Amino acid sequence: MRGLWLEDQTLRLRDDIPLPSAPDGEALVRVTLAGICNTDLELARGYYPFTGIPGHEFVGIVEAGPDGWIGKRVAGEINAACGSCPTCAAGRRTHCENRTVLGIVKRDGTFAEHLTLPVVNLHTIPEGVADEVAVFTEPLAAALEIQEQIAIGSGDSVVVIGDGKLGQLVARALALTGCELLVVGRHAAKRERLEKRGIRTGSPDDLPLHRADIVVECTGNADGFGLARRAVRPRGTIVLKSTYRGEAAVDFSSLVVDEVRLVGSRCGPFEKALPLLASGRVDVTDLVDATYSLAEGLEAFAHAGRPGVLKVLLRP
Amino acid sequence: MRGLWLEDQTLRLRDDIPLPSAPDGEALVRVTLAGICNTDLELARGYYPFTGIPGHEFVGIVEAGPDGWIGKRVAGEINAACGSCPTCAAGRRTHCENRTVLGIVKRDGTFAEHLTLPVVNLHTIPEGVADEVAVFTEPLAAALEIQEQIAIGSGDSVVVIGDGKLGQLVARALALTGCELLVVGRHAAKRERLEKRGIRTGSPDDLPLHRADIVVECTGNADGFGLARRAVRPRGTIVLKSTYRGEAAVDFSSLVVDEVRLVGSRCGPFEKALPLLASGRVDVTDLVDATYSLAEGLEAFAHAGRPGVLKVLLRP
Repeated sequence: MRGLWLEDQTLRLRDDIPLPSAPDGEALVRVTLAGICNTDLELARGYYPFTGIPGHEFVGIVEAGPDGWIGKRVAGEINAACGSCPTCAAGRRTHCENRTVLGIVKRDGTFAEHLTLPVVNLHTIPEGVADEVAVFTEPLAAALEIQEQIAIGSGDSVVVIGDGKLGQLVARALALTGCELLVVGRHAAKRERLEKRGIRTGSPDDLPLHRADIVVECTGNADGFGLARRAVRPRGTIVLKSTYRGEAAVDFSSLVVDEVRLVGSRCGPFEKALPLLASGRVDVTDLVDATYSLAEGLEAFAHAGRPGVLKVLLRP
Repeated sequence: MRGLWLEDQTLRLRDDIPLPSAPDGEALVRVTLAGICNTDLELARGYYPFTGIPGHEFVGIVEAGPDGWIGKRVAGEINAACGSCPTCAAGRRTHCENRTVLGIVKRDGTFAEHLTLPVVNLHTIPEGVADEVAVFTEPLAAALEIQEQIAIGSGDSVVVIGDGKLGQLVARALALTGCELLVVGRHAAKRERLEKRGIRTGSPDDLPLHRADIVVECTGNADGFGLARRAVRPRGTIVLKSTYRGEAAVDFSSLVVDEVRLVGSRCGPFEKALPLLASGRVDVTDLVDATYSLAEGLEAFAHAGRPGVLKVLLRP
């Protein structure tokens, strides 16, 4: 089958990838649409050693697998858990000690014509939800993980650092809580997409100094963390939502003196993301900047990596 | 009056310090006993710019101040708050934006014959509690802050990194929660003091890898944080309880992937610490390694700075 192949930090298009076969309990899915995430760009730059087909955001049709699944249109959770380690037994399956992760750890991903995933990971997409909307299920679920980890309500002042792909989704998810929300970003065009949806934005100069109850860092760089540190109030919370390259220098003493909390945040609840997309309560229709065929995959990656670009999709 | 004076990172004994006078709302306290904390050692090494009398742990007798206070034996909270800034208004007085801090920020401390503090900071020590016990009120309160910030119960596995002054108090406070407790330290003699009180200890080699629900880092160094990072489970919590010099290099991506929480922790509730000391539920009688007169203050600091030493007291 055709797919993008990452090896030795080099991404290339291949037409000779063997069609995978689904083991017991897994489904073979024909990918109809896939999304490029910053993690994919970082993988391709060598931030993490991975060999195989990258990609973890997708919509597809089940072509083979257990009874009842064939023909279903699905999105899929990316962590394939063993179900038997102490961490799975404790109910933290996304942290399974033996997990594979779609397009990230020891499991081929979505930038190909087919993939396999355990059927326990699959979620049926309601009729009437376009592929171009449903493909946001995985990243929206990740955004919603913040609300799983921290109680956020109308009394809270929340700042999102970053107006990119991740910041856009995080802000739209947080807006549902009724919190007092400010998104800080450097790109007028991106901020405008949020303002149009009633979400207040500002530049780094508009940051309230040490006043925010919660700050969500969505840039994945040291400058973004510096802004988050300046925005958060004593005893406030900084959510680390992005991936970071290398190590960051952190003033631990100031975290102690100000009793600040840092919270790492990763994958979230598909069962909450899908209804929000289906109902349009979270609108993602303005977030797609381009759609490429799989044959144009390398061009799609180059496009996705350009400054100011939001979501780029791949259609196998 | 006599006191230790810190200036240009040099500590010296002075006999010519003017007796302070208590402003409205403050009390003049004659210090009867003071404790040396690692923060004092770090201040003397220049970790933070401070000029004046260091020290923030004390017991004393009120000699002048508002009606009803004179003659009382007291311990005192170290943060003197303005009461009117937004942070005070929000109930976070220990984080007051205009605060002075006893022996740490813009307020002379406890290593002298007298000090002044707002009477709202003072706590009367019950009769029958020895000065040598009551002088632990401030550091025990700081240890108890962890339980104010995080719910800890009998179902939780908790690891304390460090068997020094701070680790000893933190462990003894945590033991009250009934949690499954392990203190990791490198000093047999210090660990023995915990074992005698029924608290399990081990060496870094005994650390459970990625299994602890909560890890409290009490060493204030990068190695200690490294151990904490290895001990904590996915979605677990690392409490930063110590002061740290400079910046630490932190792998943010691993915090995100494992959804770990870091929580800075500082000053705590005197009103909870005093009854625990008074009842003996937290026993501190074995933690004092030496007591010096104020005239021997420099020797006391040298002693407190030696490896393996726990609490050193100063008696003015």
